[in-house]
Amino acid sequence: MKKNILIIPGDGIGQEVTIWGKQALEAIAVKYNHEFAFDEAIMGHTAIEAKGNPLPDETLEKAKASDAILFGAIGHAKYDNDPSAKIRPEQGLLKIRKELGLYANLRPILLFDELLDASSLKPEVLRGTDILFFRELTGDVYFGEKKRNEDNTFASDLMNYHRYEVERIARKAYEAARTRGKKLCSVDKANVLETSRLWREVVQELAKEYSDVETEHMFIDNAAMQLVKNPKKFDVVLTANLFGDILTDEASQIAGSMGMLASASIGDSTGFFEPIHGSAHDIAGQNKANPLASILSAALLLDIAFGLQEEAKTVTTAVADTLKAGWRTGDIANADTPADKILGTNEMGAKVLE
Amino acid sequence: MKKNILIIPGDGIGQEVTIWGKQALEAIAVKYNHEFAFDEAIMGHTAIEAKGNPLPDETLEKAKASDAILFGAIGHAKYDNDPSAKIRPEQGLLKIRKELGLYANLRPILLFDELLDASSLKPEVLRGTDILFFRELTGDVYFGEKKRNEDNTFASDLMNYHRYEVERIARKAYEAARTRGKKLCSVDKANVLETSRLWREVVQELAKEYSDVETEHMFIDNAAMQLVKNPKKFDVVLTANLFGDILTDEASQIAGSMGMLASASIGDSTGFFEPIHGSAHDIAGQNKANPLASILSAALLLDIAFGLQEEAKTVTTAVADTLKAGWRTGDIANADTPADKILGTNEMGAKVLE
Ligand SMILES: CC(C)[C@H](C(=O)O)[C@@H](O)C(=O)O
Ligand SMILES: CC(C)[C@H](C(=O)O)[C@@H](O)C(=O)O
Repeated sequence: MKKNILIIPGDGIGQEVTIWGKQALEAIAVKYNHEFAFDEAIMGHTAIEAKGNPLPDETLEKAKASDAILFGAIGHAKYDNDPSAKIRPEQGLLKIRKELGLYANLRPILLFDELLDASSLKPEVLRGTDILFFRELTGDVYFGEKKRNEDNTFASDLMNYHRYEVERIARKAYEAARTRGKKLCSVDKANVLETSRLWREVVQELAKEYSDVETEHMFIDNAAMQLVKNPKKFDVVLTANLFGDILTDEASQIAGSMGMLASASIGDSTGFFEPIHGSAHDIAGQNKANPLASILSAALLLDIAFGLQEEAKTVTTAVADTLKAGWRTGDIANADTPADKILGTNEMGAKVLE
Repeated sequence: MKKNILIIPGDGIGQEVTIWGKQALEAIAVKYNHEFAFDEAIMGHTAIEAKGNPLPDETLEKAKASDAILFGAIGHAKYDNDPSAKIRPEQGLLKIRKELGLYANLRPILLFDELLDASSLKPEVLRGTDILFFRELTGDVYFGEKKRNEDNTFASDLMNYHRYEVERIARKAYEAARTRGKKLCSVDKANVLETSRLWREVVQELAKEYSDVETEHMFIDNAAMQLVKNPKKFDVVLTANLFGDILTDEASQIAGSMGMLASASIGDSTGFFEPIHGSAHDIAGQNKANPLASILSAALLLDIAFGLQEEAKTVTTAVADTLKAGWRTGDIANADTPADKILGTNEMGAKVLE
């Protein structure tokens, strides 16, 4: 198979971990005789520094021309502490999602048995959990009109959804549910929000069409609670952009750490694959970040963008084997982990490649 | 002390549990020689059925005339399944919050040692947790303009904040932090939302004024994760209406169950006290609901509305003693709880009053 892959390391630890996702792809190409051509581009704070623009035209063109994109992370403390900054790294990520029509963000909560003890949740609560989140990614309060009045006494963001936006992601979630546990939980706040009521109406209609899938509707506050109380009860979870952002980060504790979770953003064209963790500037450049989420993002890329299931499995198995052999990065270690089993980013990446 | 207390049981299990909050207040009146005069009013589904209005004028008048309000819960499955219903129970709750100017919702996460095992989180993660949430309650996307276009293809909700709305609740949160661990964590989504950026600016300004309190800013997705990962790190948490709704329900798992958490809504006039749990129609009328959140709401009422600290303590201690004696409702029982220690709503309420 011949494919063009664009690597966008982005900011902070994105720079350190994405190298390992790329190396995993290279190793797969060699092993299975594929031709992967790699290109690289900048985005976020890195791109603001270099070009004054969080998503330079060149990056967007390269993205559109590629067959799949492996991304790192975005963000920088500088902007977080300056709420009035007009140009911000995150704008780059939001714009590329919109421009590529990446409306469906898939976040599988993959639980490695070896990491049952790394979580703050009890092992018996976790064991057997297998959730696939479908987070809507190009609508909601993320993209609605933003206002600030002149004297800085008022600010607003418009939360909004079109029926077609809800329908297309709901269909994808239902299709996935059919191939899994045949259960779909749609999360909204229909007792308060008009957008949620539209959301619920659309899902109710589709529920009839997908009557082989069991549909449940849950309020976001309840879902945030149930996810900690009894994560096993969920199969496919379908939700809006903002709620999905919150729930999937929360759910990372099920997998032991944010450093373990990969995501796939798909839609109209090129697929976009990234860890769900952020740029973590507090540990950036220290060889401490967990590269497994980037490596698992590469596995998702192989599976979803190229349909290479066996290759994807090889990557996931390599990660599982490394964990089985006892190797850990700091974020997934616990009090019982021997000090000599705790690795830096590069050592962990190398172990998986072995 | 002579006081008028309005009881609004509301919907579902609100009807069953609020009786016990009221009885706790009556018992305190007898023990400490106070004169509490009680009145009752309807709200929510119950009021729609009786008067076609989720917040009848009479209820609002009684509320304004009282010295404090003890509320139960709101909501009914009928409306949840019918997203197009124009009149909804929750409108009653939102309207009374707005009309009474209840802009600050205090939700203490009180951890009883006896319930360490009832949580899905590990006891060592929980032990020592003591969080006080300040949730803004009369602004945000809850109250902004809602739109639906005629052909039902589009819906929107306006998320918005005025500077003064952020400032007044932030002040309350800072004042509380001063009397506690001197740490305040403000939760927002300033990397995406304009309202959050205004929020962060206001908190940054106040942080200078309250320089004896350590201020931290955290994104909502990260906060939802940290709350499960390491709840001990939080002291006072300050956040907007929607984010507070989500985080406090999530945090209920720290206390073992939603059935344990009380809240106080305060602002310009009469204080409003309620469990954070909902109407739970699935178990309503079955004598299964946990009355402790209502009893603890009564304790908050005594403390915050009337300044009766000792009386409040008496109620909290009665709850703690009941738990120490091993009594549980279903929601806070676990596999090791002997069957004869599991009580219904009424039996649990009676045990605490003893
Ligand atoms: C960086 C930020 C804009 C982004 C989001 O909120 O979507 C991130 O949290 C994510 O989940 O991908
Ligand atoms: C019933 C609902 C409108 C309410 C809210 O979202 O505020 C409830 O969840 C709460 O937390 O008090």
